[in-house]
Amino acid sequence: MSTTKLPFASDYMHLCHPVILERMVATADQSHIGYGCDEVCASAKAKIREACGTPEAEIHFLIGGTQTNVVAIDAMIPPYQGVLAAATAHINVHEAGAVESAGHKVLVLPSHDGKVRAEDVERFLSTFYADETWEHMVEPGMLYITHPTELGTLYTLDELTRLSDVCHRNRLWLYLDGARLGYGLAATDTDVTLKDVARLCDAFYIGGTKVGALMGEAVVFPRPGVVKRFFTQIKRHNSLLAKGWELGMQFDVLFTGNLYFDIARHAIRMAERLKAGVRAKGIELYADSPTNQQFIILSADKAAALAEKVDCEVWARLDDGRMAIRLVTSWHTREEEVDQLLALF
Amino acid sequence: MSTTKLPFASDYMHLCHPVILERMVATADQSHIGYGCDEVCASAKAKIREACGTPEAEIHFLIGGTQTNVVAIDAMIPPYQGVLAAATAHINVHEAGAVESAGHKVLVLPSHDGKVRAEDVERFLSTFYADETWEHMVEPGMLYITHPTELGTLYTLDELTRLSDVCHRNRLWLYLDGARLGYGLAATDTDVTLKDVARLCDAFYIGGTKVGALMGEAVVFPRPGVVKRFFTQIKRHNSLLAKGWELGMQFDVLFTGNLYFDIARHAIRMAERLKAGVRAKGIELYADSPTNQQFIILSADKAAALAEKVDCEVWARLDDGRMAIRLVTSWHTREEEVDQLLALF
Amino acid sequence: MSTTKLPFASDYMHLCHPVILERMVATADQSHIGYGCDEVCASAKAKIREACGTPEAEIHFLIGGTQTNVVAIDAMIPPYQGVLAAATAHINVHEAGAVESAGHKVLVLPSHDGKVRAEDVERFLSTFYADETWEHMVEPGMLYITHPTELGTLYTLDELTRLSDVCHRNRLWLYLDGARLGYGLAATDTDVTLKDVARLCDAFYIGGTKVGALMGEAVVFPRPGVVKRFFTQIKRHNSLLAKGWELGMQFDVLFTGNLYFDIARHAIRMAERLKAGVRAKGIELYADSPTNQQFIILSADKAAALAEKVDCEVWARLDDGRMAIRLVTSWHTREEEVDQLLALF
Amino acid sequence: MSTTKLPFASDYMHLCHPVILERMVATADQSHIGYGCDEVCASAKAKIREACGTPEAEIHFLIGGTQTNVVAIDAMIPPYQGVLAAATAHINVHEAGAVESAGHKVLVLPSHDGKVRAEDVERFLSTFYADETWEHMVEPGMLYITHPTELGTLYTLDELTRLSDVCHRNRLWLYLDGARLGYGLAATDTDVTLKDVARLCDAFYIGGTKVGALMGEAVVFPRPGVVKRFFTQIKRHNSLLAKGWELGMQFDVLFTGNLYFDIARHAIRMAERLKAGVRAKGIELYADSPTNQQFIILSADKAAALAEKVDCEVWARLDDGRMAIRLVTSWHTREEEVDQLLALF
Repeated sequence: MSTTKLPFASDYMHLCHPVILERMVATADQSHIGYGCDEVCASAKAKIREACGTPEAEIHFLIGGTQTNVVAIDAMIPPYQGVLAAATAHINVHEAGAVESAGHKVLVLPSHDGKVRAEDVERFLSTFYADETWEHMVEPGMLYITHPTELGTLYTLDELTRLSDVCHRNRLWLYLDGARLGYGLAATDTDVTLKDVARLCDAFYIGGTKVGALMGEAVVFPRPGVVKRFFTQIKRHNSLLAKGWELGMQFDVLFTGNLYFDIARHAIRMAERLKAGVRAKGIELYADSPTNQQFIILSADKAAALAEKVDCEVWARLDDGRMAIRLVTSWHTREEEVDQLLALF
Repeated sequence: MSTTKLPFASDYMHLCHPVILERMVATADQSHIGYGCDEVCASAKAKIREACGTPEAEIHFLIGGTQTNVVAIDAMIPPYQGVLAAATAHINVHEAGAVESAGHKVLVLPSHDGKVRAEDVERFLSTFYADETWEHMVEPGMLYITHPTELGTLYTLDELTRLSDVCHRNRLWLYLDGARLGYGLAATDTDVTLKDVARLCDAFYIGGTKVGALMGEAVVFPRPGVVKRFFTQIKRHNSLLAKGWELGMQFDVLFTGNLYFDIARHAIRMAERLKAGVRAKGIELYADSPTNQQFIILSADKAAALAEKVDCEVWARLDDGRMAIRLVTSWHTREEEVDQLLALF
Repeated sequence: MSTTKLPFASDYMHLCHPVILERMVATADQSHIGYGCDEVCASAKAKIREACGTPEAEIHFLIGGTQTNVVAIDAMIPPYQGVLAAATAHINVHEAGAVESAGHKVLVLPSHDGKVRAEDVERFLSTFYADETWEHMVEPGMLYITHPTELGTLYTLDELTRLSDVCHRNRLWLYLDGARLGYGLAATDTDVTLKDVARLCDAFYIGGTKVGALMGEAVVFPRPGVVKRFFTQIKRHNSLLAKGWELGMQFDVLFTGNLYFDIARHAIRMAERLKAGVRAKGIELYADSPTNQQFIILSADKAAALAEKVDCEVWARLDDGRMAIRLVTSWHTREEEVDQLLALF
Repeated sequence: MSTTKLPFASDYMHLCHPVILERMVATADQSHIGYGCDEVCASAKAKIREACGTPEAEIHFLIGGTQTNVVAIDAMIPPYQGVLAAATAHINVHEAGAVESAGHKVLVLPSHDGKVRAEDVERFLSTFYADETWEHMVEPGMLYITHPTELGTLYTLDELTRLSDVCHRNRLWLYLDGARLGYGLAATDTDVTLKDVARLCDAFYIGGTKVGALMGEAVVFPRPGVVKRFFTQIKRHNSLLAKGWELGMQFDVLFTGNLYFDIARHAIRMAERLKAGVRAKGIELYADSPTNQQFIILSADKAAALAEKVDCEVWARLDDGRMAIRLVTSWHTREEEVDQLLALF
């Protein structure tokens, strides 16, 4: 009843980290009040506040990434504002128009390997407000970034600081989509910490679905007052889980000790092993990713052969007919799986 | 870390049925492709089609009830149509305007203990189309009913058949919110079966969250062609679970053997024990419910005293100052919990 | 090419007041910049501010009533709030779900001859916030009233003051739909003035379409700061007129001298003549309206006979088979038309 | 009370063509039933059907261009589909997010001087459906084009035919925004006729606001069945004019004889005179427009000097500091105004 190929299609191919499952088994008989008003959620929030260094943070648990993006964006900006994002941003490409269904236009910035540059934001704004007809246009109200990006790349602390500056000088909220935040923070050479993210952003979410949880994302507003009646807005966006403590439990486990970061670090080691291996075999990389998503270029024939033995995703079809293939490691990836994969090339 | 009161606040106070948890533990190491395109979901759908007697049914798994309502309603009617529902309907009262946020007006019908009457639908339609200005008004496109209703009441087969008739004679879709469908089908004196529901309705959902699942609802379109691109519409409404097989697994377990109905039947027995007990103590009932939600009337003082020992919900404040209290049994309720509760009166 | 029946179907059956037409002819050759940024609009706004006694008022011109309601409501409350209104309110019945299409639920209050009572607002709010689950419900953000109402009735100054009080004590905006405001202010026994409306409401509109204008409504926010970027919001709601000065011109003429009130007063005199006439003939009134809409009850046969000679509207079909017929006078109604109408009974 | 500069800012700076005003004066005393159900509208529709060569066409009158775009797009595609358009398209840039406020994403194609190429549509579709994740993306449901474009350029009959072909082979609706359609059809060298537009497009609108009308656009669905309940959808989008016959009257006059085309031809002659004049003075053109919008490049100083005497619009700021200035002729432009303008260079 499950796939028997090598599982490199994504980082959400396995149920959840064993410690979470143990916790579920151990507490299965307990009863909880609904909608996240329980003590498990309270405990998880306390741990996240501590990890972020933001004792006043407002935190909510949601079920998935698209959902978190839509609810947060719609809660942060009024209906007549739009959201700036890279052309390659998840909200612009892969959310089936969920942001537009909430009435907001995605205002597109150039993507530099998935990243947005502060000077492009600056240029957008100066062009926008210099236009005599700007009041006929969608005013940007926030900047959406992903970290790691859809291409696995990372902002440096300097880049993130400059984005935060340009946003706050121009009354834009800075929102960070952290679907894979753990893998970003656990990367070998990054100089960005969770506390930096909490300090520089007005809102962000800590991805659980892709980093060991059964499901769930923790959206963090480091400084209170950014949103109002967020609980009601979650419900209005059909995103409130009745058994809310199930979400709290994911993060209560993941943020006990260093678990969230430890399992992310493991995935990074697996990705580095994979990257070194394909490089050693002379396979070209499509993107130079320091995180758990790796992108390689194969001929169409080799890509097809690989797909028979490996769950993986065609990321792009190149003009010369070759394929960019995405291979993703996760908290669950085993060293022998990486080696079996490498043996296929 | 959990509530220590007697758990009668709702039927979603416990994690999930032990068999589901066992299945999760047993299969935790398997890998699956995402978004419900896996074999576990396929298996669960096959079992539900069999149970419904509708081999052609289109089935999707969603996470919660409000979500299922919004996605299904928005997929079934065009933007300019509204949905008929009882004044007491969940979509009209307790979904924070989620249906309106998708642009649809809820058109209110009288509630008779939570139920809608065929003659009220008929009267609404004849008044509507007799109005010279009806093209300036929101045209009804579907009828939304709950079974059991928010007050625990049930439609008879005859009532359901007449609703189905009036809808189909008038080009309305009939949609049944089955958040607690199991408890309705397991009621002692009901003459409505799952196959009847599938035969008479154009869409309905089989509630999992409240009937033993970790989470999840199975929306069923018994006859194909009612909706288009439903997968994309789930995504657009930020309701697509990345680890879709987790939802399939809930229903694959619940629809193996007779589990879904057996555990619902247990909750009904507990509710009947509770109802008989409070009646024996001379406590007045607020509604005469044959299902797992029971409603009793207490003085404000007694209600307050009860609330110190029991997780329960104030359903309504009566004009004379007394309180209508809702007490809910579930698949998890134990006989001794009911007896402990009764001992408090 | 026009109707040859007696024109009592509505107060928007004729082009515009002759003085407006004269102004259009006289200035047809002038050029103006677009979108209402011209001097004609500026002049009209100054006159309206003067008439309202609110020198700081923010004023915008829109094209029609439904449009004004939707743009103003959506600009005044956040997406998760709803709008309280009488069951009979135009936004609840005759706007084809325009308010819901902007995502807001209409929260229904009892209608007392079209009016809302302060105690009903109070009761709604106390019930709402006493409900333990209120955060799952649509929070009221404003109260919508019409003056005159859809039934031609009027609030007294005392009633309006009490509504204003209950709103402001409870952080609700008070919005007044003045589609027929002129006819309300010109009624014989009213004690409400335009300055009262401006003092007691947070927003209202002065109806032009039904009171002599070619088209157009002037929405007034007596105290600044209630809405932001209203110009952009008009555009976003596809409601911005390119030749904005045409709207300004309507109000610049109507608010020169006492024209707006004089022509409304004329309509009232015609309505009083009509009302006295039908009463003298023993015809029963459906509602006791002091303004330009009159409602009479006729047998179905007589109603049908009337409809052959008079443009009028069936307002309601009574349970006994009789018809409530609406007859509307306007700034254009001539005394002989009223007499010809009366001669038909 | 009007601008005294030379009026070249737009083609909606003057009230309306004198014949329309005469008609308004002549018929001011007639009464009409509301909402466009009158005989004036019926007459205008008949004339447009005749001019289009589409006796079965469904036609509605709306007030402005953004409004027409939003109502038509939202009526033609289901909520989960988006609309393809050039990056420079009015709906993508200058409608304040009105299309997104109706829930639809604008899917951007390259702009070639404001035009869309059939091969770009083809490429978009083949890339889209080749993507394994396309069901997570916004499916294109229609193609939006403008004719003339925002840059004054025109499609050839061959280009339009190829766009129509690619759309219909791929189940896309083809929609043409004809805000300035008259000026396009009256251009000197165009081979596209109104009948061609009606034959090749599934919907389009004939712009009135910019071509002599007081206001108003006529949206044409050449073949019935493309939209349902369009009247109700107009109302729902707060776009229904109470005095609907006023819109019908504009088009009844403009489509009597050849008036619409004659006055457009006049504007073209004025534009040609202007273009020849600036070219003779050695002024560089920003775009080579065959219609009534002309775009010239001036130094910032000269642009500022010009703006003191001429109402005109800065279209773009070039990287070298120079300005692209838009100069627009209309049905109202007088030869001496063109000459006065030319004398300023």
